[in-house]
Amino acid sequence: MTTLASLETPCLILDGGRLERNAARMTGRYAGTGVKLRPHMKTAKSIDVARIALAGNFGGITVSTLKEAEYFADHGIDDIIYAVGLVPEKLSRIARLIRRGAQLTGITDSSAMAEAISRAAVAEGVMVDLLIELDSGERRGGLIAGSAGVVDLGRALHDLPGTRLAGVLTHAGNSYHCRSLEDLYRVAEEERLVAVTAADQLRAAGLPCAVVSVGSTPTAVHGQNFDGLTEMRCGVYMFGDVFQHEIASHGLEDIAVSVLATVIGHRPDLNAALIDAGGLALSKDRSTGAPGLAEDVGFGMIMDETCARRIGRVRVGHVYQEHGMLVSDGLFPFDDLPVGARVRVLPNHVCMTAAMYDGYRVLDMDDPRRVADFWPRVNGW
Amino acid sequence: MTTLASLETPCLILDGGRLERNAARMTGRYAGTGVKLRPHMKTAKSIDVARIALAGNFGGITVSTLKEAEYFADHGIDDIIYAVGLVPEKLSRIARLIRRGAQLTGITDSSAMAEAISRAAVAEGVMVDLLIELDSGERRGGLIAGSAGVVDLGRALHDLPGTRLAGVLTHAGNSYHCRSLEDLYRVAEEERLVAVTAADQLRAAGLPCAVVSVGSTPTAVHGQNFDGLTEMRCGVYMFGDVFQHEIASHGLEDIAVSVLATVIGHRPDLNAALIDAGGLALSKDRSTGAPGLAEDVGFGMIMDETCARRIGRVRVGHVYQEHGMLVSDGLFPFDDLPVGARVRVLPNHVCMTAAMYDGYRVLDMDDPRRVADFWPRVNGW
Repeated sequence: MTTLASLETPCLILDGGRLERNAARMTGRYAGTGVKLRPHMKTAKSIDVARIALAGNFGGITVSTLKEAEYFADHGIDDIIYAVGLVPEKLSRIARLIRRGAQLTGITDSSAMAEAISRAAVAEGVMVDLLIELDSGERRGGLIAGSAGVVDLGRALHDLPGTRLAGVLTHAGNSYHCRSLEDLYRVAEEERLVAVTAADQLRAAGLPCAVVSVGSTPTAVHGQNFDGLTEMRCGVYMFGDVFQHEIASHGLEDIAVSVLATVIGHRPDLNAALIDAGGLALSKDRSTGAPGLAEDVGFGMIMDETCARRIGRVRVGHVYQEHGMLVSDGLFPFDDLPVGARVRVLPNHVCMTAAMYDGYRVLDMDDPRRVADFWPRVNGW
Repeated sequence: MTTLASLETPCLILDGGRLERNAARMTGRYAGTGVKLRPHMKTAKSIDVARIALAGNFGGITVSTLKEAEYFADHGIDDIIYAVGLVPEKLSRIARLIRRGAQLTGITDSSAMAEAISRAAVAEGVMVDLLIELDSGERRGGLIAGSAGVVDLGRALHDLPGTRLAGVLTHAGNSYHCRSLEDLYRVAEEERLVAVTAADQLRAAGLPCAVVSVGSTPTAVHGQNFDGLTEMRCGVYMFGDVFQHEIASHGLEDIAVSVLATVIGHRPDLNAALIDAGGLALSKDRSTGAPGLAEDVGFGMIMDETCARRIGRVRVGHVYQEHGMLVSDGLFPFDDLPVGARVRVLPNHVCMTAAMYDGYRVLDMDDPRRVADFWPRVNGW
């Protein structure tokens, strides 16, 4: 039997019980609202996690790479939104998925791109469903709702050969900048309004708009009004991380993913200790250092081996490739962290940390000291 | 025939010609100095790259993980320093390597750890060679040269059953903070002095010290005095990156690794464009944003598809998981970067960026538009 104590470090731990609770909570939030929950698999990249996230939902997912799309289609999931602006260079892989029967939907925010995709789709002999990408405040990709471009692009997608207008999509990535519940309510409502406004524009122009899709974990957790929406997309909620905790989207005790590491040295002269988890084991995301948050936990927050209890105010203050430097407020608790002790590091940003591993060591739901399984991830592109 | 133009994006490109020149330059620098070059494989993690780095050298390497040690031993390299503080928890894998004939050397900076390693080595029935880790200014691991602890630890390693004192080792990671050639000369000389001082202490106490090992790419490039050293360890020099360029350790035109990406959108309203390489394709290292450097290139510097020419002053200003936001000083050169155009992103910190991929697409030495090979990497632990 593999136990937590027998794992080599560093390694990526997934608490199966916490995952189930997180998934059930979000599924429960959308049950009966009329809004379909479409989990975003970019965080977990695992069919085993997807099955838990999809329990009680309609079965569609969101992905961030074509490799994810291909992997999940291989595992029988065939309603997939690829939520990164489509370019014709990617059409041959998209066409392969469509030809094998996947209901794959892309996104675009440009009429020029729609025309190029149309030409590529015709050449491949497939019909590509596309959502119009809208910018609801993140300032990444997307058209501005209410602008004439929305109807122009909608008409192009509707009329061009090889493309079909499936609806509209937006992502309130700006919710990550919220620092109060009022902010979160406002951003969630703006996200909704942007999507509904563009959907109304399309319908007023006689165009179809079956899908009105929004989502981010913070807005999915805090949104109060779903009028006019058909779908909610979110992914981080399955695992959670310290940053999501700091912006009030996830309980600290519900964070399901952590890195198991070993204390490999003491530096009393520096009031610090070293662990064998550095930039490669934790990633270099510094989201908890953003302005307005409660605490900068550096590159991760240090818990005991069972992940039940935080150790003092210890955090990973600095990372090298394979070393993490533990620091704390006040005197470093060397007695609680002898060399050889094992700790769990709660990640700042779980999407980045999980991506450093080829899979999860999954703790048993009933006995979190037992390792029940290994669930592989589909990394890369 | 696979060509650069036929690769899907994002992907990791290795310019074989540049790699060969970088490797030959460092090998040439140490030829005839009496100091053996022991390449650090933590950056490349590839046997194909190791073979090029080892050409003309004695054949030993440095590694940062036991997985690297096992992989390189599987490929016939058997003189290996594992340059992360050893803990007894890792002894079973170390013992397996030693029993199969590898000359594996660990490092430690603690007498308590030496005793624990001794007990584990005796239990495994192996003899473990250990170097005393010294702190030459990085403030990570290591004893202070000249302190009594050096001789105490040396005697412990010499006398304890199951351990053998192999020598001393230090790494001037603080060379990364240098901002002038004078700084670099000084740090390189300090690194040397620390190692030689501790070696002298051990010998004066009647202890052996066969190995006097130092190294970091900046000090390996700029060191002027090698008296008393036996080995130089460095790794980033094989590839180079923008940060190494900014601290005068690597030519911009010699950077051998880059990420091929596609422009997937324009945002004229934001004076920006999007590429399909984000935080996962580039990593989130921000080393070029460190104080005192010439230019903060964000998450990477944008070159044309052949990597011969920088495009304006374009850089990856912001990353999302799968999107990079290109920005520039002044008006964004949209005409040079139409949607669908392909660019090469020079990484800030190549150790982190390369680790996001399972291998390298290797360009032909003679024709850098042709992809000659795929070289896998050994990621993980």
